[in-house]
Amino acid sequence: MSDGLSYADTGVDLDAAERAKEGLKGLVASTRDRYTLSELGQFGGLYAVPDHIASPVLVSSADGVGTKLKVAFATGRHDTVGQCLVNHCVNDILVQGAAPMFFLDYLATGVLEESVVQDVVRGVATACLENSCALLGGETAQMPDFYAEGEYDLAGFIVGQVERRSLIDGSAIVEGDVLVGLEASGLHTNGYTLARRIVFDVLGLGVDDELPGTGVSVGGELLKVHRSYLNALRTPLADGLVHGLAHITGGGIPGNLPRVLPEGLGASIESGSWPILPVFGALQEAGGVERSEMDRVFNMGVGMIVVCDEADAAAVIEAARADEIDAWRIGSVVPGDGVRYS
Amino acid sequence: MSDGLSYADTGVDLDAAERAKEGLKGLVASTRDRYTLSELGQFGGLYAVPDHIASPVLVSSADGVGTKLKVAFATGRHDTVGQCLVNHCVNDILVQGAAPMFFLDYLATGVLEESVVQDVVRGVATACLENSCALLGGETAQMPDFYAEGEYDLAGFIVGQVERRSLIDGSAIVEGDVLVGLEASGLHTNGYTLARRIVFDVLGLGVDDELPGTGVSVGGELLKVHRSYLNALRTPLADGLVHGLAHITGGGIPGNLPRVLPEGLGASIESGSWPILPVFGALQEAGGVERSEMDRVFNMGVGMIVVCDEADAAAVIEAARADEIDAWRIGSVVPGDGVRYS
Repeated sequence: MSDGLSYADTGVDLDAAERAKEGLKGLVASTRDRYTLSELGQFGGLYAVPDHIASPVLVSSADGVGTKLKVAFATGRHDTVGQCLVNHCVNDILVQGAAPMFFLDYLATGVLEESVVQDVVRGVATACLENSCALLGGETAQMPDFYAEGEYDLAGFIVGQVERRSLIDGSAIVEGDVLVGLEASGLHTNGYTLARRIVFDVLGLGVDDELPGTGVSVGGELLKVHRSYLNALRTPLADGLVHGLAHITGGGIPGNLPRVLPEGLGASIESGSWPILPVFGALQEAGGVERSEMDRVFNMGVGMIVVCDEADAAAVIEAARADEIDAWRIGSVVPGDGVRYS
Repeated sequence: MSDGLSYADTGVDLDAAERAKEGLKGLVASTRDRYTLSELGQFGGLYAVPDHIASPVLVSSADGVGTKLKVAFATGRHDTVGQCLVNHCVNDILVQGAAPMFFLDYLATGVLEESVVQDVVRGVATACLENSCALLGGETAQMPDFYAEGEYDLAGFIVGQVERRSLIDGSAIVEGDVLVGLEASGLHTNGYTLARRIVFDVLGLGVDDELPGTGVSVGGELLKVHRSYLNALRTPLADGLVHGLAHITGGGIPGNLPRVLPEGLGASIESGSWPILPVFGALQEAGGVERSEMDRVFNMGVGMIVVCDEADAAAVIEAARADEIDAWRIGSVVPGDGVRYS
């Protein structure tokens, strides 16, 4: 019998998974709020619907970090990608006016390294705390011969709530509304396959080399945390100033802004109305990428667009700057469809 | 400029992702119910909290298919793994008494094959329909040089609801309660790394070969759909017969049943009180796996355990059999802790 197979022989260590979870209990507990009923929960996470909302609508989104993870693998720094993931999801439901309630993560590894798992989940929990979002649960999967050694995939799911009458769906947008762009921290979580190709293959740089023209290392620049716009937009949302929101992710401004515009309306974007972050200039030049392709792949320094009445643009910009996020008038809503650059 | 890089050059085809999503619209729409407000949704999925629940508690769980996916890759059959995932998640929240509301999937691929994506999501949507669960959204990620050619990972996230007073947390369980085991269809989604090692490496079988002693091909046996116990347990739950539930997943009966038992109570399991499915005998024999290891890795033919009053055991068994799921008395709740086999 001692020659027989056991699960541990296959590389799956159930006890290691238990230990990793134990080490994360304190972290996860720190994100709980008064609606989190997790002490009751064993299999599923429990969250009471807040009773101060008359007609609650749940808003939910799923996302992954994508190939930004490859930069984490190359640098050995695993505590930021979880923040990117949570902030991305927070922004995705924020565009409909929703405030986060809870988050669950899915972390799939080949061989489970306890310290890496804990770093990843520490990032998730940190961002959950910053966004007043309970880390309600998650799955940590060990899948030997599925992921390369030292690699993993990370995805997440968020659920928020909004009063039904406060849902933002873009229907309030009218011709002449102003587009306010909110500053991105960098690439956020989009375009990494192209960016890595340019930086590592075309330029032949390593993660510790300086990314030309940025004054920052490749690893430092490419791991910059995807920004959450929740706090910057709390006041404009509460004051009813927001006609529509677009989170600028894969597809850039042309791929995301039209999704929120009503039929018959398009966007006119004024080129040069905001400072393109140096990282995008470096990537464009080194890769010989067409500007239109850059616009379609990257956020180009604008992570969120607020559509509002011209009279309210200054207040929106002010609110963002109070949260230390720069903001600019970058265009307006015009008859037509799609996005035109002028 | 024509020598410059574009995103498509890197293997990421944004248009292919759009086409795959378009082809799935009808499928996804078929799972909608009257609480699904998706016509408003662009970035996040929208779901109204049903207003007939006085004090709603949301119950949420995240899970992945795990290495059962490798069997799908080997057979080229991609329409069942999504069903396994949804049913697994449904069972995970069912153990707390929750009925599903909505589901989101995360599908990560290397190079996006439209037909495979559509097969996978067809499975997800099919099971969502069967479990009265809206497929509210999801993420399909293209991550070249992350996943091997023809491979993908699939995870999911479910949210259900339960009246606060109807939450099942095991606190109703008392000494002398009966354990009713509900029949599994096969391995469900656990223990695949060990099972594949035995079947493909030790026995050297291919997916079309018969798994010895089962009368079924390796692919047919290992792809059997993880069973949902939602319909089998609707009546016992509505009638208040259920003191506790344990979904038998990774860790087997010893790893899952104690999670639901109150402090000071353990389980006595009567060996031989249910028929061990042939697949487990075949795996144990070929792998020379100890019986205690088998019990700790596999469900051994019991996919769900219901803890109830002795007087209600017959009604629980009857309800399961009415849903064409066999069920048996497999043990009882005793003083102590953990699980003992007799």
